[in-house]
Amino acid sequence: MSDPTQSINRRIVLASRPKGEPRDENFRLESLPVPAPGEGQALLRTLFLSLDPYMRGRMSDGPSYAAPVQIGEVMTARTVSEVVESKSPAVKVGDIVLCDAGWQEYTVADGGKVQKLDPTAAPVSTALGVLGMPGLTAYTGLLNIGQPKPGETVVVAAAAGAVGAVVGQLAKIWGCRAIGIAGGPEKCAYVAKELGFDACLDHRSENLAAELKAACPKGIDVYFENVGGKVFEAVLPLLNPFSRIPVCGMISSYNATELPAGPDQTPVLMRSILTKRLTFRGFIVMDYASQYPDFIRDVGGWIREGKLKYREDVVDGIENTVSAFQGLLKGKNFGKMLVRMHR
Amino acid sequence: MSDPTQSINRRIVLASRPKGEPRDENFRLESLPVPAPGEGQALLRTLFLSLDPYMRGRMSDGPSYAAPVQIGEVMTARTVSEVVESKSPAVKVGDIVLCDAGWQEYTVADGGKVQKLDPTAAPVSTALGVLGMPGLTAYTGLLNIGQPKPGETVVVAAAAGAVGAVVGQLAKIWGCRAIGIAGGPEKCAYVAKELGFDACLDHRSENLAAELKAACPKGIDVYFENVGGKVFEAVLPLLNPFSRIPVCGMISSYNATELPAGPDQTPVLMRSILTKRLTFRGFIVMDYASQYPDFIRDVGGWIREGKLKYREDVVDGIENTVSAFQGLLKGKNFGKMLVRMHR
Repeated sequence: MSDPTQSINRRIVLASRPKGEPRDENFRLESLPVPAPGEGQALLRTLFLSLDPYMRGRMSDGPSYAAPVQIGEVMTARTVSEVVESKSPAVKVGDIVLCDAGWQEYTVADGGKVQKLDPTAAPVSTALGVLGMPGLTAYTGLLNIGQPKPGETVVVAAAAGAVGAVVGQLAKIWGCRAIGIAGGPEKCAYVAKELGFDACLDHRSENLAAELKAACPKGIDVYFENVGGKVFEAVLPLLNPFSRIPVCGMISSYNATELPAGPDQTPVLMRSILTKRLTFRGFIVMDYASQYPDFIRDVGGWIREGKLKYREDVVDGIENTVSAFQGLLKGKNFGKMLVRMHR
Repeated sequence: MSDPTQSINRRIVLASRPKGEPRDENFRLESLPVPAPGEGQALLRTLFLSLDPYMRGRMSDGPSYAAPVQIGEVMTARTVSEVVESKSPAVKVGDIVLCDAGWQEYTVADGGKVQKLDPTAAPVSTALGVLGMPGLTAYTGLLNIGQPKPGETVVVAAAAGAVGAVVGQLAKIWGCRAIGIAGGPEKCAYVAKELGFDACLDHRSENLAAELKAACPKGIDVYFENVGGKVFEAVLPLLNPFSRIPVCGMISSYNATELPAGPDQTPVLMRSILTKRLTFRGFIVMDYASQYPDFIRDVGGWIREGKLKYREDVVDGIENTVSAFQGLLKGKNFGKMLVRMHR
């Protein structure tokens, strides 16, 4: 602890609640002394910090499934961290663990409350992505709510992202036709060629609805909803009777400060639900935490077999966290968004 | 067949597609010779004709789960009919049967394709209501999608109607708190006092949202959706996490010629689905036809035991069918809407 670079913990706190897009001034980078672990605790240095769209919700004060981050509090995030000091028999210096350090370089945590990672089993960063919360979200939402059957058509947007990429690849593994939607030709090419989706459409196209219809000649049986907005509008008319729609996120509206202009389309949606006997079901990953072992067995195995690929978009340094998160909400990332801390 | 009153079949055909509320000129009363049954067929005289909100959909040309009635065709309806002539070994003169005669006084049908009713088991009109399609709709939608658990709160609108009345009484039988919504003090008193709901609110009240909140101190776990509109808007904020919403109908919008004014509330609904992990599932009664024996056993038994009550709103004469249907869509009926044919 004599290294001066290790005596300071830099962290990002929520300075004010964003209205619309999160702006630089909504956050504050603070430098504090590195905290000291108490008995049973360990000092953890952040290696990778996960940035995920749900964090936008935590910046707002509305009712949700989780309490908002309070003004002046460190932004929440799951991290992969290294034990640099331990007063707990549960972990030792050098251990790599999964924990919830938030947007900061150091934290202290109870040694018994962190999850040790095996760096020889998979790159540790994957515990935040394809083998972590985003992967489990894709797996459990598609399996439990989407319930895809061989030969059915599964559509997912943000298809180059952490969740969407897994959804489509699982759909292929489970015998479905997988259609992705992503932003720009580079991502679309990656999704179709590298990830093996049957097709990937650019949501910026003026003809998205027509292109989606052409890509789904037998309609859509499962729409994994994580974006909302124009993609949802293009999907709705193509849904087959008895389609399932796991509702995982709505990134297109997270920064919205007002509702879209009228008329109110709610009756159109409700009428579709009724006449096509659709199932919309919202979920969050914690609802299916008990399926984590199945997920690790299946997805971990498919990664080792080369059947399931992933991509990470890594920025370096806590000082770049805010801009990386701002970009994430605009779809500027290409793969799972991570911040790697300076070593 | 020498009786002149039996030589004419009066029927109502769709003359033109309604725009908004069905108007008298959208229908035409025709008088034709009573048809003659062919070999294997029977001539059936309509006793009771069922009027149901779904028929509004059949008058329109949009995509739905059932083909629309064509211009010049007899309006569809399920009927209770009496066999007046039989060339089929399956039925004999005097038998009372359930069939799909439509809005007319006579029809011919294959003797093997009608369902014989036992007039000693229950009043035959109940085969169109509490022991028929509306009752089965309530039973299967609530059981399969609503999945009510003892102690939960179930809300249903059109609570004095054919479906809603059964939903709330089943909720009570299954140990739930049942809150109805109906139009006007007379219906509300009937729902609360006669049917035994815990409370029934008047949807015409200016304070519906506040009254509903007061009537549901533990929130809402099941909302059986058959009306849409303002009731749905009052329900949505009160839904508990993991609530189930069987989507059975949207009578409030069946006559709408345009969507409600903006803004577009779809993101509000989708965000509620996501954060509260709601399940919206549309259904139509045919999806659960296999549960008909269970339904007859349960609901038939509860009716005999006096645990489940029903009310019919009967008008006489085919010439009053159109006005009765127009009233049904405005909630003017009080109980299951039936047309009794002149004898």
